[in-house]
Amino acid sequence: MLGYSEAVAVTDEDRRAFLEFAVAIAGEAGESTLGFFRQAVQVENKLIDSGGFDPVTEADRGAERIIRKAIAARFPEHGICGEEYGLKEGNGLTWVVDPIDGTRAFMSGMLHWGVLLALFDGQEPIIGVMHQPFTNEYFYGDGNVAKYRRGNVHHALRVRACGSLDAAVLAATGPQLFAPGDQRAAFDRLSESALLTRFGGDCYLYGMLAMGFVDVAAEAGMNPYDIQALVPIIRGAGGTVTTWTGSDPSMGGAILATGDPLVHKQALEILG
Amino acid sequence: MLGYSEAVAVTDEDRRAFLEFAVAIAGEAGESTLGFFRQAVQVENKLIDSGGFDPVTEADRGAERIIRKAIAARFPEHGICGEEYGLKEGNGLTWVVDPIDGTRAFMSGMLHWGVLLALFDGQEPIIGVMHQPFTNEYFYGDGNVAKYRRGNVHHALRVRACGSLDAAVLAATGPQLFAPGDQRAAFDRLSESALLTRFGGDCYLYGMLAMGFVDVAAEAGMNPYDIQALVPIIRGAGGTVTTWTGSDPSMGGAILATGDPLVHKQALEILG
Repeated sequence: MLGYSEAVAVTDEDRRAFLEFAVAIAGEAGESTLGFFRQAVQVENKLIDSGGFDPVTEADRGAERIIRKAIAARFPEHGICGEEYGLKEGNGLTWVVDPIDGTRAFMSGMLHWGVLLALFDGQEPIIGVMHQPFTNEYFYGDGNVAKYRRGNVHHALRVRACGSLDAAVLAATGPQLFAPGDQRAAFDRLSESALLTRFGGDCYLYGMLAMGFVDVAAEAGMNPYDIQALVPIIRGAGGTVTTWTGSDPSMGGAILATGDPLVHKQALEILG
Repeated sequence: MLGYSEAVAVTDEDRRAFLEFAVAIAGEAGESTLGFFRQAVQVENKLIDSGGFDPVTEADRGAERIIRKAIAARFPEHGICGEEYGLKEGNGLTWVVDPIDGTRAFMSGMLHWGVLLALFDGQEPIIGVMHQPFTNEYFYGDGNVAKYRRGNVHHALRVRACGSLDAAVLAATGPQLFAPGDQRAAFDRLSESALLTRFGGDCYLYGMLAMGFVDVAAEAGMNPYDIQALVPIIRGAGGTVTTWTGSDPSMGGAILATGDPLVHKQALEILG
């Protein structure tokens, strides 16, 4: 299991090389998923024994294999933590991989899913990529800067000011994310305070937060690989991302991301 | 307001011409929306007096104007019923237009929205088009056949067999669609009976139902222009669409669409 450790020092040059590599390999992995998208593939059920439902397609596994192989070839000293194939220890720099974030959306033929890839330095993800291969979109960042690319369209990502929670567009993948009781009640309070609430989105809604069209994302039960790639994109676009108690989001759990720092403060008070 | 009247007889040749025209004009209208998509446009609030929130962008109005102008030029004798500019009476054949179905998704930069265009013959919509311009996708049908087109990809749409509701993927735009009380309770019963429930989607989820990746769609509070374009697509793909009481869906309200007719029967019993 991925955990915190002393931060590995990385030069700016290395960081640029890691991000460039990550964008390229997310593209390759994404391309491989399209061969399975909207195909009637066999769906395996990882959680069948526990009664849950977590579809895993061949696409998911194939994409993670592509990413792992590329990392092993280029950065054999690095660790890898992937949704499908678990943790391989390394030198303290660990690639954190969700080959298809939003597998239920993928299975349903919908569009809000993506390939997620981050590099964790022991303390925080220092670069991150979210790639939607069907629309050929890339969202990526290093915590200082974040960018969007689609074909010839290429621009910086920047969150928008919102001013106050009552003017905010709130997004979450779905109400079933929240544990019944206090957690669900806290989300409902947040939703009542926001201008409107959109469900559906998985990783894609964080891309829209970074682009300045969603103001608040609140989710729960997230794994490190669900959130790490998004952290350097959100921060690079000027946004804020923490847990619901305001702590570091790298290990997942209940996550709050906002464009406007004032709204983050308001939302933390409501969730706390 | 759109209402039922005696069905206007239409030849097969006319029907083909209407569908071809509708696909072309949905494409033009869609193209016009992209100039506004992910732009920080001024959002007007149609329902500000009633306290509701129904964002209308310039994109929405511009797209409807394009469609109305094209219809007036090509079929001046036809009626038009549009979300933005209301009803113009005609010869009994009425074009039913939602220039952007899923305006909240559009405003949030998300992908599940589309241009909807149908032709109502007084009794039912005889052709329908759903177009997503950002992804360049067209879903269209005439009640007997339905097709999908994206660039060079072009194939028939066909729902999938599901067998039983407990194996079904259920989709709805969001839980806020349902009136508190009986309607919400009925949806919750349906959701508990399904394998999983996906929120988010607007018109796009019906495209995925027609393509065989979603089994059940259940929504409420729909207007004629929200559903009419989708009816000939769903039926053309082999699916079933009615109200929650099993009656004709053309006037909207609470809508149930399914791929598998057995599942439709099961779902009607649960909702009834």
